[in-house]
Parts: sequence; structure tokens; C-alpha cells
Amino acid sequence: MQRYFVFNNLINYESKIAFISDKENVHHIRDVMRMKKGDEIILLENDGYEYLCEIVDISSSISLNIIERKENDNELNVWVDIAHGLVRREKKEETLRRLVELGCHKYIPVLMERSIVRIDKYKENEERIKTIIKECSEQAERGKLMEYSNPLSFKELIDISKEYDYLFVCYEDSGRSNEKALNNYLGKLNNKKVLVLVGPEGGISEQELDILIHNSFIPIGLGKRILRTETAPLFVMSILGYHAEVGDNNE
Amino acid sequence: MQRYFVFNNLINYESKIAFISDKENVHHIRDVMRMKKGDEIILLENDGYEYLCEIVDISSSISLNIIERKENDNELNVWVDIAHGLVRREKKEETLRRLVELGCHKYIPVLMERSIVRIDKYKENEERIKTIIKECSEQAERGKLMEYSNPLSFKELIDISKEYDYLFVCYEDSGRSNEKALNNYLGKLNNKKVLVLVGPEGGISEQELDILIHNSFIPIGLGKRILRTETAPLFVMSILGYHAEVGDNNE
Repeated sequence: MQRYFVFNNLINYESKIAFISDKENVHHIRDVMRMKKGDEIILLENDGYEYLCEIVDISSSISLNIIERKENDNELNVWVDIAHGLVRREKKEETLRRLVELGCHKYIPVLMERSIVRIDKYKENEERIKTIIKECSEQAERGKLMEYSNPLSFKELIDISKEYDYLFVCYEDSGRSNEKALNNYLGKLNNKKVLVLVGPEGGISEQELDILIHNSFIPIGLGKRILRTETAPLFVMSILGYHAEVGDNNE
Repeated sequence: MQRYFVFNNLINYESKIAFISDKENVHHIRDVMRMKKGDEIILLENDGYEYLCEIVDISSSISLNIIERKENDNELNVWVDIAHGLVRREKKEETLRRLVELGCHKYIPVLMERSIVRIDKYKENEERIKTIIKECSEQAERGKLMEYSNPLSFKELIDISKEYDYLFVCYEDSGRSNEKALNNYLGKLNNKKVLVLVGPEGGISEQELDILIHNSFIPIGLGKRILRTETAPLFVMSILGYHAEVGDNNE
């Protein structure tokens, strides 16, 4: 069934009615999906509930009856935020799409020493990013939208890192990271806030790594092959998500 | 250091000389990287060894001295082949790139009931696919190239499945798959041959699933969110690779 995150719309569960007026959702429901009176859709308000609704009127806005409300429990039981050195637009969008599906809580672009893109390029695409996250969240059947942070400086990243229970940085040089390190934590992350930093195309500088370690980031290796900057976040998110949701540690 | 898989070239370890004549590698080393006499590169012959070489002459072909040979042990200790319902070209190429990095042994496209692309479209791109796999394998520092199969029919997939130790099929309907199923096998896969099937955009039909189960494929769930056809292979490959290489089960 088609799912739509709606904002600034009316979902009144007590009186069992809903009303969609935002152009994009109306256009998709009416013109793309060609839905009609009597068709059913699921509405989400980003509050962890989903509302099964029946269309009762469809024109420049859509009126619906709420048939049923239920909790969406498709979110992971570990809060994983991925901080990612600023990378090129296509790579960032590809990474965003996959991270939404894999259950990431928030994506945080970070301007790092070896980032090869300019921070001002990022702001232009904010609307596009919101649309990507909304559509991917709907397709993945998430109950909440992945959050997206404005790009942070490296210093700002260090500042916000204090808010997390566990901090990891992916680092490929086995001299300074331990590829078994993550194992020690996989059983302990449920209901915790975890931040994982992945460097940009050029990697993380030695100086940045020193600062990160000084600020309690744990360097983790990701195996013997060299993962690209757009692959490492998916690998880590897959491991963390699997262990929280499906793994032996999740009772 | 730059790495090159070379074929039909001369690597003579006994006499410590190597010779590169294929156009693509010569072009990349000479014109793209602008290497000169005295520069060092690593050559690979897809036999699990890497040869550290020094350029001694560079023109329309390249002569090198072999400085050192060593084993490349960057391959996973589990043999994972990913069978993937035929998907659109961009999705297939994106999936190929990631699977190379994640250590997949072989990618096998399969014509399935709900595939929306035509099998004849696939053959056109064979050279392009080889180039993608070669370049990604070099960047990921793999010791062997990921293999690529010509597209198989569903029946051919069933036929080759007899050659594997473990067979899994990703299936999102929890009524017919168990999201904990994979857990029971993660400790047992080292040095085994594993085949994982992921359906195309439209998914796997009920009838196909029946046939797969009848032929010893184990249906596995991948968590609560719905993964796209290009994300599911990366998720499974990440889990299998991590556990074989980094996880507790790998001693």
C-alpha cells in the first residue's frame, strides 16, 4: 500500500478524519497513482504511528477517513547517527538513500581537512535532500524520517559528540585501528546513542584522528579491503542494524 | 600505491622481470598517472599474489623489474556468490561496485518472473562490466577479481545451486521467512561456498519461492524495513563478510 509522510496537514484521530493539502502529496496520489474515492493509503506524521485511511474526496486537496491507527515499529532499537566527511553530491545522495533503508537515525555531513567539495554547495540542495529522504522513508516503510543535519565543521562535530553514548571512527590503517574493536560493543548498543564517523574521499588526516581519539572516538577497522567513502557507512550501518534487530544480542 | 590487474602479459618471477603491453593499463600508467622510469606499482595476475615492481622502460609498452612478490590475503575466508534478479543497468553497476569492495566472490544475474529488463540488454555491456570490476578490485586492494556470470535462467540457477554448501534467499514476507534465520549459520560459513539470491525490483514470486525452498534455499528476512533490490545484496554481503573476517566467529 502507498505510504505518505504528511506535514502541516490535518490528522484528527479522535474524529477519524484526515486532510491532505500539500501539493506534492496531492499530485502523487491524484496524478501519479491516479487514486480515486474509496482507495486506501497509509499516512505518517513522523510520530511513530501510521494511519490507514480511505479517500473520501479528491480534488485540489484530499479528504480521508481514518480506518485504523497503529504503531510503526520498523525503527531500529539503536540510535545510529552517521557523520560523513563532505563528499560529492551524487555520492552523498546515494549514501543517503541507502542509509534511510538501513535505519540510520541521522546523517551529518562534516567539513574535514581532505574534503574536496565546498560547503556552500551543500545548502543549495536542501529541498532535494528532503524529498529523497521522504520518498526513501516511505518506500522502506519507516515510521520516522531519517534526520539530516546541516554540514558541521570538524570542531562542531567534536562538540556534539558529547551527546552520544558511543563514538566510533572508521579508519583503515590497522596500525591505528582495530578491526575487531566493533565486536566488543555490538551487544551493548541497544537503546544507546551511537555516532560513527566516516571520512571523505581523501580519508581522515593523522591530525584529525589524534583529535578524535583524544575525544573518545574509538577507531574501528572494517576488514581487509579498502571501502570507498560511500560504501563504509552502509557497511557499518548494516552491521549495527543487523545486530540490534536480528542478531543474537537482540532478545 | 597504484595497483593493476594484468592479463596476457609477462610476469616472470624467476627472472624478476615483468612486461605490460595491454593498451588500457599502459595508457593509465603512462598518460593518466604520468609515471616514469623508477616509479613503483603493484601488479596482480588474479592468482592471489601481488608483485611490487619498478618501471625500467616506458613507451608503447612498459618493462619492469620485480622487486618483491607477496601473497595478497585480502580475500574473505567465505565464498559468497550473490545471485540477483535482473535489474536496470545503473542499479546493477552500482551493486557490482559495492559487492567488489565488500569481497563478494561472484555476481550472477538471474532472469526472474518479475524482472523488468530484457536479458539481451545485458550482453551489450560485458566489456564495461569487466572494466568496472577490474578498477574497483584494484581500488579495494583485492587479490582476486570478483567473477561475473552471464545471466542465467531461473532453472539454470537451480541447477548450479547444487554446487554450494549453503543456499539463502532474501524474502521480506515474515510469514515465509525468518529474520533470525541467518544467525544460525553465521558461525558455520568459513571456508564454505554460499549462494544468496536477491530478487529483482518486483520481488520474488510465490511460485519461485516454492521452487527455491523445495531446492533447499533457506528464506531469510533482513530486518523490518523494506530494502531495495540494490541495497539487499550489500546488506547481506556486509553481514556475511563481517562475520567471516572480523566477527567473533572468526578465530
